[in-house]
Amino acid sequence: MFQFEIIKQHSYSKARLGKITTSRGVIETPAFMPVGTQGSVKAMSPEDVEECGAQIILGNTYHLFLRPGHKIVEELGGLHKFMNWKKPILTDSGGFQVFSLAKLAKVTEEGVQFQSHIDGSKHLLTPEIAMEIQQSLGSDIMMALDELLPLPTEKSRLKSSLELSTRWARRCREAHTDTEQTLFGIVQGGMDKDLRRESANQIVDIGFKGHAIGGLSVGEEKEELLEIADFTADLLPKKSPRYLMGVGTPEDLLNCSERGVDMFDCVMPTRNARNGSLFTRSGKLNIKNAQYLKDDLPIDPGCACYTCKNYSRAYIRHLFMANEILAMRLNSIHNIAFYQDWMRSIREAIQQDKPIKPLE
Amino acid sequence: MFQFEIIKQHSYSKARLGKITTSRGVIETPAFMPVGTQGSVKAMSPEDVEECGAQIILGNTYHLFLRPGHKIVEELGGLHKFMNWKKPILTDSGGFQVFSLAKLAKVTEEGVQFQSHIDGSKHLLTPEIAMEIQQSLGSDIMMALDELLPLPTEKSRLKSSLELSTRWARRCREAHTDTEQTLFGIVQGGMDKDLRRESANQIVDIGFKGHAIGGLSVGEEKEELLEIADFTADLLPKKSPRYLMGVGTPEDLLNCSERGVDMFDCVMPTRNARNGSLFTRSGKLNIKNAQYLKDDLPIDPGCACYTCKNYSRAYIRHLFMANEILAMRLNSIHNIAFYQDWMRSIREAIQQDKPIKPLE
Repeated sequence: MFQFEIIKQHSYSKARLGKITTSRGVIETPAFMPVGTQGSVKAMSPEDVEECGAQIILGNTYHLFLRPGHKIVEELGGLHKFMNWKKPILTDSGGFQVFSLAKLAKVTEEGVQFQSHIDGSKHLLTPEIAMEIQQSLGSDIMMALDELLPLPTEKSRLKSSLELSTRWARRCREAHTDTEQTLFGIVQGGMDKDLRRESANQIVDIGFKGHAIGGLSVGEEKEELLEIADFTADLLPKKSPRYLMGVGTPEDLLNCSERGVDMFDCVMPTRNARNGSLFTRSGKLNIKNAQYLKDDLPIDPGCACYTCKNYSRAYIRHLFMANEILAMRLNSIHNIAFYQDWMRSIREAIQQDKPIKPLE
Repeated sequence: MFQFEIIKQHSYSKARLGKITTSRGVIETPAFMPVGTQGSVKAMSPEDVEECGAQIILGNTYHLFLRPGHKIVEELGGLHKFMNWKKPILTDSGGFQVFSLAKLAKVTEEGVQFQSHIDGSKHLLTPEIAMEIQQSLGSDIMMALDELLPLPTEKSRLKSSLELSTRWARRCREAHTDTEQTLFGIVQGGMDKDLRRESANQIVDIGFKGHAIGGLSVGEEKEELLEIADFTADLLPKKSPRYLMGVGTPEDLLNCSERGVDMFDCVMPTRNARNGSLFTRSGKLNIKNAQYLKDDLPIDPGCACYTCKNYSRAYIRHLFMANEILAMRLNSIHNIAFYQDWMRSIREAIQQDKPIKPLE
């Protein structure tokens, strides 16, 4: 089951308030998906993630394929049961990690050969295998396999790559058999608008229930990110959700929501948390800073998360400096709660049709 | 407020079922105290610790004195508020860590000079300072400062050491001003019964509300541990609680409960958890073992802890092998729950006056 409904169109921007309905629950959009790379949103329990307000999380196919292996996850009842998360899960195709983490051997028409970053073992990822893995994991939303190129790359190379990604997307669509799982296509094309248009036309033609904008947040300038996200979102059908992959900062989420994007994911809130970098309504704060040594305030006095309700900056700084594991959890809870509050605030502004100023 | 009541004397052993009442709550004895060295029971939240059934935890004066500093903890409202733990806390004197972790400079009549294991800074710990630190931390039960010697040590040296410890205990008693906090004395004397008797007589004479057996679990044979614990417990007043410091395995807790000990602490359950070594009703299990790769059972099918209710061995093994932080928490919750269940089972057997066979 997969339905997308637009509840309200913002009149100040292209933002829309939406609702995705799946058999595992509703996802209010614009939505942020915490990343649970290896079957765990790092340092958090599923209850922690849910209490922060997340309605969907992302799992990484590449990591779960290598460890513990998708067949084992399938034998144990699928990823939801394995990790004790009952709400929707989106899995990526594994492509991005193969191109960014693994030692790449060779890209052919068939797929991509790579070596595991864990043990150097050799593997082949094809569109059909990407579907098989995601079907074994049992995610609610699956992503088509695409090729990613390092930027800058010359236009002719980008063009042949997006055409390969289109052929792979078509093979994914054909290999996709489980109707309980919904498959999204991904638009590529780098920073070139002609290529983005070409890719969007081809991907939309295949007929997916949702579309992602791939290949952004790879080191380009903010302005370029926004321009390409804006341009590409406009090329995608209004009636299906648009997912901007791997983005981004709270400001990115705001700016891209206003450009018509409905879904986001990023490791930033959890990764920053583990480095002591915490989001607050008045800007970022680094808990390592000596100024927090005796600071009795919560991380963010405006926040109602478990961490802010129960602990002072001084305590969290102490835990962090003393390498206590609890610091990782408390910080992650706060940053994920901040991101979810941020998105809720964006949704409320669209609902009330007023200019979007999250958490002000 | 500090009351100790013996509810039932076991007729099969010297074990007794007791109840310590403090202003922060009741501690049913025999009791196991999880160790929260640096203001956190490692990898667990206070709610986790409480849900496992713990009624009191231990905090380490040495660590909190060095980081963040007892004055800071005091300014922030004391250790309970700082770490968000509302039930009783016992703090040690800092002595054991000074003698085991710090670079020791010099022991004099006044106290012990040492260098921090964190930054090499020089400090002095005296009986009066040990009291001051623990009063700043605001623990419910404080421990007197004592000297610890490496074993084997010749008898004359042990004798002069226990006499120094007695003089320090007396100074602690004199420096102890806060009547909301209860001070325990510690019996030393190594593995020598004459010296244990001498120390016990002197410490009991000072007039403490509880007594600890120190200097055990330092590498001696199990038999010797049990013999000295047994012998020393018998020297202590029946009407006050007896605390065997730093002990031990589940079997140690059983055996020493049967010898009349009421309180225990040990890092074993949490440290083992972080190494993947888990206690179960059918023995220890190492979650790293490949046999658990596809094992859908909980760690311990007889256990009702959060971890066992929600996660399989296969999932926990996966988290552990993938270095996921959540593994540390899930394992620690289980091992602390096991220790608490173990103690509850011992208490029930005393209550029912039947032979103690915990968790059978």
